Amino acid sequence: MSIIRQTCTPACLFSGDRFSVTYRLFGSEQEARARAEDICIEQTVEFPNELCPEGIIRDHVFGRIESFAPRDADSFQAVVSYAVEIAAGELTQFLNVVFGNSSIKPGIRVEHLELPQSLLQCFKGPRFGREGIRGLLDVPKRPLLSTALKPMGLSSKELADLAYQFALGGMDIIKDDHGLTNQCCSPFEERVGLCAEAVQRANRETGRRSIYVANITAPHSEVMKRAGTAKDAGAGGLMVAPGIIGLDLMRELAGDDSIALPIFTHPALQGSFVTSRNGMSHGVIFGQLSRLGGADATIFPNFGGRFSFSHEECRDIVQSASVPMGHLRSIFPAPGGGMSLDRVPEMLETYGQDLIFLIGGGLFRHGPDLVENCRYFRKMVENIR
Amino acid sequence: MSIIRQTCTPACLFSGDRFSVTYRLFGSEQEARARAEDICIEQTVEFPNELCPEGIIRDHVFGRIESFAPRDADSFQAVVSYAVEIAAGELTQFLNVVFGNSSIKPGIRVEHLELPQSLLQCFKGPRFGREGIRGLLDVPKRPLLSTALKPMGLSSKELADLAYQFALGGMDIIKDDHGLTNQCCSPFEERVGLCAEAVQRANRETGRRSIYVANITAPHSEVMKRAGTAKDAGAGGLMVAPGIIGLDLMRELAGDDSIALPIFTHPALQGSFVTSRNGMSHGVIFGQLSRLGGADATIFPNFGGRFSFSHEECRDIVQSASVPMGHLRSIFPAPGGGMSLDRVPEMLETYGQDLIFLIGGGLFRHGPDLVENCRYFRKMVENIR
Repeated sequence: MSIIRQTCTPACLFSGDRFSVTYRLFGSEQEARARAEDICIEQTVEFPNELCPEGIIRDHVFGRIESFAPRDADSFQAVVSYAVEIAAGELTQFLNVVFGNSSIKPGIRVEHLELPQSLLQCFKGPRFGREGIRGLLDVPKRPLLSTALKPMGLSSKELADLAYQFALGGMDIIKDDHGLTNQCCSPFEERVGLCAEAVQRANRETGRRSIYVANITAPHSEVMKRAGTAKDAGAGGLMVAPGIIGLDLMRELAGDDSIALPIFTHPALQGSFVTSRNGMSHGVIFGQLSRLGGADATIFPNFGGRFSFSHEECRDIVQSASVPMGHLRSIFPAPGGGMSLDRVPEMLETYGQDLIFLIGGGLFRHGPDLVENCRYFRKMVENIR
Repeated sequence: MSIIRQTCTPACLFSGDRFSVTYRLFGSEQEARARAEDICIEQTVEFPNELCPEGIIRDHVFGRIESFAPRDADSFQAVVSYAVEIAAGELTQFLNVVFGNSSIKPGIRVEHLELPQSLLQCFKGPRFGREGIRGLLDVPKRPLLSTALKPMGLSSKELADLAYQFALGGMDIIKDDHGLTNQCCSPFEERVGLCAEAVQRANRETGRRSIYVANITAPHSEVMKRAGTAKDAGAGGLMVAPGIIGLDLMRELAGDDSIALPIFTHPALQGSFVTSRNGMSHGVIFGQLSRLGGADATIFPNFGGRFSFSHEECRDIVQSASVPMGHLRSIFPAPGGGMSLDRVPEMLETYGQDLIFLIGGGLFRHGPDLVENCRYFRKMVENIR
């Protein structure tokens, strides 16, 4: 017998609309099915099943297994649906329902998200997306070229000088390294002023529309301020690491009409979600969640580089960057590392033309003149058919 | 030859103070040492070693291996130090230096953090800590008793009725379930008003000082508003999931003098950091980082419950909840799940008396009268010597 009595919550509060999460569940069929059943409870009422009263809680609040099937030799796949109302229109609570407590249990991986329109409409999504960024840069078709200002320890003036050379050589997007915040070597306001100006100066010479992207990953109360400072200084985009500042703060930033700059996500601190079989798929965290959080481009480590992502995992990100999600625009995958001439065909085959090549060391290694090195890569990309 | 010239950044910007991170590195000695060397670069300049100029960048910005030794059969332990200046006094950038990019690489686990006073002073830490919470509740010595309001789907009135019974029965801390945010079944403002009032009403009858703890895990712009609403309604504490809202927002919340309520952290969405050998230790994420983020108590799944934490992992959390960290107060471990009479000796042995017992289903299972069930557990705890 349950101490909890029948709830007086009216059933009409629930629309019947549900969002669904595909979970990969490891173990035997019996173990995997037990995990699926556990998820329905753990992610919602978090209360002993047998103590829950009949009625609205079981009918609407519990998660529901929509399908369950073998996936491969050591895992099963379950689609679990949840009433949209339990997410309360909040991205934070949506994350909690998808994987809050289940993140603490072994053998569970979030593979895919499906949101009905009634939930999607709570999120504006990417303001620019692929087409918007192409429009800003006036590059209708070819892959985009991007690089990062580093190493940390250079002064703002030295970083701005690099930015100028990068833009002169034809890099479309010149971003702060994600470790540059507000260090004494290069305070934020000084850096963004000098770097934005340097890129604009190069643009006046080239006639192009390269942009400087400022890293505004910062303490909570600084993020919006730094966004405003960067915008006022003439930055053409903003970079944040949602794993550090929180996905929902990125969503608010992206939705702020007074800022209205494209948002680039950096994967810092998000690796633990994808480096074991527990966690989330690459597509969910770097693709679908980035879009729900309003990013316009998603930076991640390219396969074959110094990180560990596989070809298949990168493909998952690309697919999730443009999988249909209602009004949520498709976003640019921005694979970093491992860019060289001989890898271009393979990368195009994986990513298509709608990608941002993020090049680091390669620009410094090719030859002694940075501007010429940039021109070399730019020509390479312009010749892509 | 490097294109990057000697930096003009003056060396006097660096104080010589360094913080250090203990990493557990998996693989052979050669692999583990390579990982340690890679961390020194990846977490700082993220730039090819051979292209970095001599001088300030190598001398101060690079991470530095302070020690390297075998740990167990398949891992090594390296202590890497970083100049405090590269963290820029920001908790966000501190996190990024500790584990930003390295989180994306396999075989690396953050085991311990050591911060010098010059960095610790950037963070206020817990406002109350153990002694502060004991003072608020007027419970000088015994373990504290806590429970959660659930299941989701109950109305605010029904939840408040539970809160009243819990407080009447002697629960010290009555918190929202972490899935209760602002759902239609129980809108936030309505719930906190009714629940805070219910606990105060019970206190008037019992003469005790039980507190209602409101879950304010919410969209970014709502967190501080809900904190204020909860405070005004008479809530005695706040719960947030830093894995969802971001650790730094919790830090700001904890430091806000207009709120000044004890903060309880919930581990939702943080599981991926600890469920594989990549990630962070339980002590770092639930202990040390919670304290840097200003929490006064850290909720986590008890060993032997329905989650997967081991005895040793829980011990790590307890140690990190009180390991010396300058002015940062010790905080309460709040292990949840698995509470029953026969487990008390084992839990006391692990946690000592400075713990919060978080009891869920057990309160409903013991007998048909919720108030009596609470009294039973209360008596059990009062009899602890």
